Amino acid sequence: MIVATLDGVLHPSDQPLLRPDDVGVLRGDGVFETTLVVDGVPRDLEEHLARLAVSATMIDLQLPADDEWRRGIDAVLQAWTPLPDRQMVLRLIATRGPEHADVPTCYVTGGPLPEATCAQRDGVRIRVLPRGFAGREIVVMPWLLPGAKTLSYAINMAAIRHAKSLGDQDVVFVGTDGTVLEGPTATVVLAVGDTLTTPPRDGILDGITVRRLFAAAEKAGWTTRRAEFETERLLSAGGAYLLSSARILAPIVSVDGTARPIGPRTAELAALLELPGAPNGR
Amino acid sequence: MIVATLDGVLHPSDQPLLRPDDVGVLRGDGVFETTLVVDGVPRDLEEHLARLAVSATMIDLQLPADDEWRRGIDAVLQAWTPLPDRQMVLRLIATRGPEHADVPTCYVTGGPLPEATCAQRDGVRIRVLPRGFAGREIVVMPWLLPGAKTLSYAINMAAIRHAKSLGDQDVVFVGTDGTVLEGPTATVVLAVGDTLTTPPRDGILDGITVRRLFAAAEKAGWTTRRAEFETERLLSAGGAYLLSSARILAPIVSVDGTARPIGPRTAELAALLELPGAPNGR
Repeated sequence: MIVATLDGVLHPSDQPLLRPDDVGVLRGDGVFETTLVVDGVPRDLEEHLARLAVSATMIDLQLPADDEWRRGIDAVLQAWTPLPDRQMVLRLIATRGPEHADVPTCYVTGGPLPEATCAQRDGVRIRVLPRGFAGREIVVMPWLLPGAKTLSYAINMAAIRHAKSLGDQDVVFVGTDGTVLEGPTATVVLAVGDTLTTPPRDGILDGITVRRLFAAAEKAGWTTRRAEFETERLLSAGGAYLLSSARILAPIVSVDGTARPIGPRTAELAALLELPGAPNGR
Repeated sequence: MIVATLDGVLHPSDQPLLRPDDVGVLRGDGVFETTLVVDGVPRDLEEHLARLAVSATMIDLQLPADDEWRRGIDAVLQAWTPLPDRQMVLRLIATRGPEHADVPTCYVTGGPLPEATCAQRDGVRIRVLPRGFAGREIVVMPWLLPGAKTLSYAINMAAIRHAKSLGDQDVVFVGTDGTVLEGPTATVVLAVGDTLTTPPRDGILDGITVRRLFAAAEKAGWTTRRAEFETERLLSAGGAYLLSSARILAPIVSVDGTARPIGPRTAELAALLELPGAPNGR
């Protein structure tokens, strides 16, 4: 893994970088972004920097300017030796810094896209799990940080572990009102005929990949909408997908152990998203 | 701040200790405990080690044995120069460690009890905030980590910041069913006559200080119970308190801006909890 601070200095990834009293560790108090680097270019970087700033505002964290982030990002990109069959996952991390110091800890990392992540572009088995809240209810409660991408991902990770313990690979969270919310690290999209549907942004992360898909799909003649739907639709829709910045597009092929087909227009959607070539010519 | 790893080695607190790819930072993926050291002795250490183990089990994290923790704790205790008017806050921290390494990062810190925390023993102004879920509902959903003390405390910290922005000092979370849950870092207790009441353990942290209070209070003739109650009781009960390991007992003196008296038997409860002497003879 390549690591750079915002002064452009590289740091060995196996050497300590964070103080023991950093509240990023002690409290999961910070924000982050993840994106994919293809042919040396981070995808949707403007959007990720913008969302990082939104998340930071939600937790009252003053971030360095975008130019400073770009210095760190450039250092990572320059240190990365691109392999023809390996994409890089770029991460931007900002914590509130050492306790009571009021100086954020900011750094950028780059590492190879894990094989298991990449393989989900061929299909992902998901487990539907209740999230314990309703998106519409928490969206008006800023202290619950609805839609902020914070470092406090313990529940997201626990949910994925739970799904794996049941033989699945990922999760779709459902709200107490019965409507689909999001995955722990992904946005859910359905394709029915020439219509793409994703849940409203209430209480969930505002996905960058789905925004990109919707913009491209509209130009290509698709209808796109943000509307609530229930979990049954994950099986009955022509196509069902997890979208995220690293996987980009993962067709759901199993819901709670019930197989479902890959949507007939999956290749079109992958093309709209400019899904990069997979390792080993997959 | 004093910092020790479990091998008993001390580390300068202003020097990095955690790798940039530690999932304690990247994902808030880890567990912790906090307790107070009085006269060189950590309060309720057995209970804190036991709860650390419970939290770790909930996130599938294999922890070092208690003896190893004690080596780190002893190193911190020995390095601490006790001042007559300053208590120490001891923290045990365990993250899942560097990504994909499967070796937890464990350390112990000790630092002075902040004045502001200590001052809450004289009274704390709280704001009631919805938590977005019902304790009874999430308690059966292990992937939501109900009652685990994880490093993912961003929402807890955001809620306290929100209360402070309204002129208050701390928060009492209320569930979607209208019943009181807990504070972001505290347990809520009511005193009415000779009865102490705290919410059921469903979906909230199993507080160690309230257990200690209930055990001592029962011996002293009080009745104790775990029962649901609504937020109105925070004002109408004879005494209302936040209990936590560092503050120990903080009488609630204001709820959403409405003043309420300190309970008439607060001194008795403080004595039952062996509340240590405050700085400067307060």
